Amino acid sequence: MKLALIGLGTVNRGLLELLLEKKDILSKKYNFHPSITAISDPVIGSVFCKKGLNIEEILSLLEKENSIKSYSEGEKGWDSVKTIKESNADTIVEAIPTALETGEPALSLLKTALNNKKNVVTTNKGPIVLAYRELTALAERNGVSLRFEGTVLSGTPVISLVQSTLKGVEIKEVRGIMNGTANYILTKMEFGSSYEEALKSARKKGIAEEQPEADIKGWDSAAKIVIIANVLMGGNLKLNDVSIKGIDTVTETDIIKALQERKHWKLIAAAKKTGDGITASVAPEILSDQDTLSKVTGTINAINFTTDTLGNIMISGPGAGKKETGYALLSDLLYINGKRKV
Amino acid sequence: MKLALIGLGTVNRGLLELLLEKKDILSKKYNFHPSITAISDPVIGSVFCKKGLNIEEILSLLEKENSIKSYSEGEKGWDSVKTIKESNADTIVEAIPTALETGEPALSLLKTALNNKKNVVTTNKGPIVLAYRELTALAERNGVSLRFEGTVLSGTPVISLVQSTLKGVEIKEVRGIMNGTANYILTKMEFGSSYEEALKSARKKGIAEEQPEADIKGWDSAAKIVIIANVLMGGNLKLNDVSIKGIDTVTETDIIKALQERKHWKLIAAAKKTGDGITASVAPEILSDQDTLSKVTGTINAINFTTDTLGNIMISGPGAGKKETGYALLSDLLYINGKRKV
Repeated sequence: MKLALIGLGTVNRGLLELLLEKKDILSKKYNFHPSITAISDPVIGSVFCKKGLNIEEILSLLEKENSIKSYSEGEKGWDSVKTIKESNADTIVEAIPTALETGEPALSLLKTALNNKKNVVTTNKGPIVLAYRELTALAERNGVSLRFEGTVLSGTPVISLVQSTLKGVEIKEVRGIMNGTANYILTKMEFGSSYEEALKSARKKGIAEEQPEADIKGWDSAAKIVIIANVLMGGNLKLNDVSIKGIDTVTETDIIKALQERKHWKLIAAAKKTGDGITASVAPEILSDQDTLSKVTGTINAINFTTDTLGNIMISGPGAGKKETGYALLSDLLYINGKRKV
Repeated sequence: MKLALIGLGTVNRGLLELLLEKKDILSKKYNFHPSITAISDPVIGSVFCKKGLNIEEILSLLEKENSIKSYSEGEKGWDSVKTIKESNADTIVEAIPTALETGEPALSLLKTALNNKKNVVTTNKGPIVLAYRELTALAERNGVSLRFEGTVLSGTPVISLVQSTLKGVEIKEVRGIMNGTANYILTKMEFGSSYEEALKSARKKGIAEEQPEADIKGWDSAAKIVIIANVLMGGNLKLNDVSIKGIDTVTETDIIKALQERKHWKLIAAAKKTGDGITASVAPEILSDQDTLSKVTGTINAINFTTDTLGNIMISGPGAGKKETGYALLSDLLYINGKRKV
């Protein structure tokens, strides 16, 4: 498998670290010997090397210079379109910043990749929220794979949990805590922090981004519930179809009052099949102490699936993180690798 | 795919009901068109019909007569060995009562099936506890599949969760509530029942068996932790290697005392990698109110995996039930069906 990485931020760096760390087991247990032949990032630099890049050198350059422009060989300066079209990679690993409104520039890049008969692995919510059906059709038409486990709950299996292990089970309803930043802030506030202090602490720990609006106002959770509804429940929702309320509507008084009754505020993303489609929402809710979701604290996320055959199936795990999201890419790559081997 | 069912108790009846109920979706979405050509049960009856049995007629006979001896056509009275060897089935679905000490007669039947180049799908713990490595090697040598999702937590994905969606992740430790009967009794006792009342209620609801020793004394949980340790953690444990303590050591006073401190008794099965192997245990433990496992009540089961890359991943769902365990068989069959299609 020959990979081209588009974007060299936290997520693709996490993937590089995992590929190095787990090299032996991936080779021995899964016969997986990936070669990274190209990386393209507008800021960090771009390099194409037909025979494969040395991951150790890349990681060492990143640590020393936060740039790969001085990599020892190969062609430099290719932009992402040229990298997708002209590199010898058969699989594009895309992890550039997301834009929920337009999906761009990622959406166009993914289309280019699929049209050039390259597998696509991405952690980017925008294109999947906006164009899941179109992209899936494009992948099928070109005989390649499109995988995006990392768009929901980082490496915690959600998409593949349902697609691989719950085949034939109908998902009737989904409820979950799908944003680590929001959940961290709510948990911190239960321990006495003000909203501002909690947000500051989340920023300090690298949990919240400089612009945490998408997390706090519920848009990030809304994007995830749209992906789940469309991919796992057969829906065709747009972000506009989701009723969205963020945690900025919850006050310290609300939280203390709930705690006194042993209740907990959580930002809940939900989707439910109705007679004529799927309704979806994101809103802070007060959960009773008996609700398992009320025990999901800090940056941990969890999703409960209500099914026809198995009742409730719940999975919890990390919702973000460098290696955790890098692993989502790795698990998608292993899936594609396994498919071509059979 | 041509199936022979060995044993026609609750589990294989659950499978038959699901195959009927989900016929359309299995055909449309997964191109899965199984034909059941043989059923063999020493009490309920045996019938072989080369062109496939009519599931509706089988289920209707079971409902009316609890026997399939008067099925309208085919050859009757074949025992399980003859059914495995001489029927035209390519896949053996085995769900006869388990024997944890010897694994028999199931163990010999599964070996016969694999040696006759038939895929094996089973919910029977005994053979997997005793001979996982031997059976896996036999399946490989004969170029067939061996699947046993239903040996742990019925249809809740555990084996396939790790094998399909957590590839390349190392499981360092496992802790879980793996027995629905024991958990139901402990939950009931928290609501004021005596041990005897709780057991009676479990029997009345069809949760506990007539001989509930394996559930209450922890052997059933021990069998499951051995399977998890050997299959998912690379161990080579026997049942004897597990330190086992059942819930019959927990008194009503213990439970009330714990509740007063907002703590909960749970029967915890655990396995942990150590320097030189895996240690495993089953024992009642007092969990704090903050522990997510403390919120797993009634017949629900849950397993927490501590991993190298993803921290803690927890899954919860049903631990038993007719359709729930039948679904484990169905999911294994869908896996084999998918494998041959690629």
